[in-house]
Amino acid sequence: MILGALDIGGSKTLVGLISEEGQVLSSVQLPTNTSNCKVHLQQCRAQLAGLAKAAGMPLGALAGVGAALPGVVDVNLGGLVKSSYAAWNGVPVAPLLGDMLGGLPVKVDNDVNACALAEMRFGWQNTFTDYVWVTVSTGVGGAVVTGGKLLRGAWGAAGEIGHIKVEYEHPAPCPSCGKVGCLEAHGSGLALGQALARQCKYAPQLAMAMAGRGLEPSGKTCALLAEEGEPHALAAFAQIGRYLGRGLGAAVNLLNPQAIIFGGGVAMSLHFLYNAIEKELCKAAHPNLLPVKLVPTKLGYQAALIGAAALL
Amino acid sequence: MILGALDIGGSKTLVGLISEEGQVLSSVQLPTNTSNCKVHLQQCRAQLAGLAKAAGMPLGALAGVGAALPGVVDVNLGGLVKSSYAAWNGVPVAPLLGDMLGGLPVKVDNDVNACALAEMRFGWQNTFTDYVWVTVSTGVGGAVVTGGKLLRGAWGAAGEIGHIKVEYEHPAPCPSCGKVGCLEAHGSGLALGQALARQCKYAPQLAMAMAGRGLEPSGKTCALLAEEGEPHALAAFAQIGRYLGRGLGAAVNLLNPQAIIFGGGVAMSLHFLYNAIEKELCKAAHPNLLPVKLVPTKLGYQAALIGAAALL
Repeated sequence: MILGALDIGGSKTLVGLISEEGQVLSSVQLPTNTSNCKVHLQQCRAQLAGLAKAAGMPLGALAGVGAALPGVVDVNLGGLVKSSYAAWNGVPVAPLLGDMLGGLPVKVDNDVNACALAEMRFGWQNTFTDYVWVTVSTGVGGAVVTGGKLLRGAWGAAGEIGHIKVEYEHPAPCPSCGKVGCLEAHGSGLALGQALARQCKYAPQLAMAMAGRGLEPSGKTCALLAEEGEPHALAAFAQIGRYLGRGLGAAVNLLNPQAIIFGGGVAMSLHFLYNAIEKELCKAAHPNLLPVKLVPTKLGYQAALIGAAALL
Repeated sequence: MILGALDIGGSKTLVGLISEEGQVLSSVQLPTNTSNCKVHLQQCRAQLAGLAKAAGMPLGALAGVGAALPGVVDVNLGGLVKSSYAAWNGVPVAPLLGDMLGGLPVKVDNDVNACALAEMRFGWQNTFTDYVWVTVSTGVGGAVVTGGKLLRGAWGAAGEIGHIKVEYEHPAPCPSCGKVGCLEAHGSGLALGQALARQCKYAPQLAMAMAGRGLEPSGKTCALLAEEGEPHALAAFAQIGRYLGRGLGAAVNLLNPQAIIFGGGVAMSLHFLYNAIEKELCKAAHPNLLPVKLVPTKLGYQAALIGAAALL
């Protein structure tokens, strides 16, 4: 059984074929057409057909296609209801795609929800019944599994851990929601790059060394320098780790999870964040709720693509 | 059908008979014996028998007995596993009480969980499928209902909204968990009294007027003065309302509830808190998660007693 998967992000879309064990068999990337949903879905269909052909099978032989979408998904509509792309809101992606695919089963969900579901099916599997799945990349996203079920909330918008407020005194503007003090503004990959840039102000020798190597103060640079043991980069990780601990502390108090599972680019550097998160979490969570395991996803870089397949 | 109910609190226990519509038919109060669980349960049994006799029925004619307990309840054990009373932890209240009651069905749960469940059965009923039940009295407690089910978490300790951190810069010590900056330390009835006391420092005429009437700066006094339109009392309510808005903001971001349902003594003054909570909630929650209704419980003062009956 081969599953089709679409990870439709804000700038790029991954199209892939996934095995029933959750392995990415093949994948291809294309830019997301945020202004025309239908045209984009047709392009995705063409890419899926190409991958299927290369695998020596007709498109119709797929067991179905899952699509992970960036925003609030109404699973009854089968599409986004609140996203950054006005042209996509209200479009019933699942039935549209189903028609384009000649009636193949199609399931859609929010991208982080898809990751959290995939973790149960293909990743940590039955290790945890109650966990928060957090993606830390440019932004911070979340999904909640409780009692082995995804927590959706009243209209499918639950899990916005990136918008829990973690700084009230000197709050930074949040690039995505327009408010201030959000975890996404203080504990994201973007914030990591900003923290490194601030470190550079007080460490001209670091700024010069970075310039000499052609490195911009980004989250990626910070990870590179931290791997080399550079103390300012490690301090930048510790700073965003503290904020992650604050936001996760609120989640732990409310949800009593066994684990926090980290995905996204910054999660590849979880070892640099771990101590700061854990220390802050111990301050933030009621003693009755501790301990909580902090673990990386077992789905790897393409979690949302595998997640899309897990929706089926 | 008459239901037996025990609301076992930290200092006092309410024993009652509840109709199948959730009305308190009769009730009696006794001090909680926190040092000997079994002795206390025998006293509760005796009080239940007395109430039943007064109602002209044998104890065995009750449809069952529910007990609301103050702490983390293991529903499989049928008793507390983490509470402030070492002598109660690990004691299987439900089977013990069942034996004392000649095999009547007995159910136990955490007191705020019981309130949240009772709201679905006897209070707002089917109005909301996703809500946070918050009790604001001396402390702040919480329970979460999502998709019409109680959210328990990994070991039944979910819903600790009172220990979400709402103040990082000038955090007050939390009287119940020993950490600092908790909602319980900044947005409780206790905090309300403290806020009024601080107001008195800058308003000697208020301090004198209170002394003249024999009023201590407590949450109750604050409510009394606010009813009279006293501006410092209203300011104290606004202050704790802002902190409640912060804590509830985190809950809204994570859970996407339709409503926050308020119980506890301070909830009787929800009209003095409403604007401050709502304003802060609008700052704290992602726009995708708004609006959220802020409503008082429909269970009244004896919510946890009615909640105990709702466990059956």
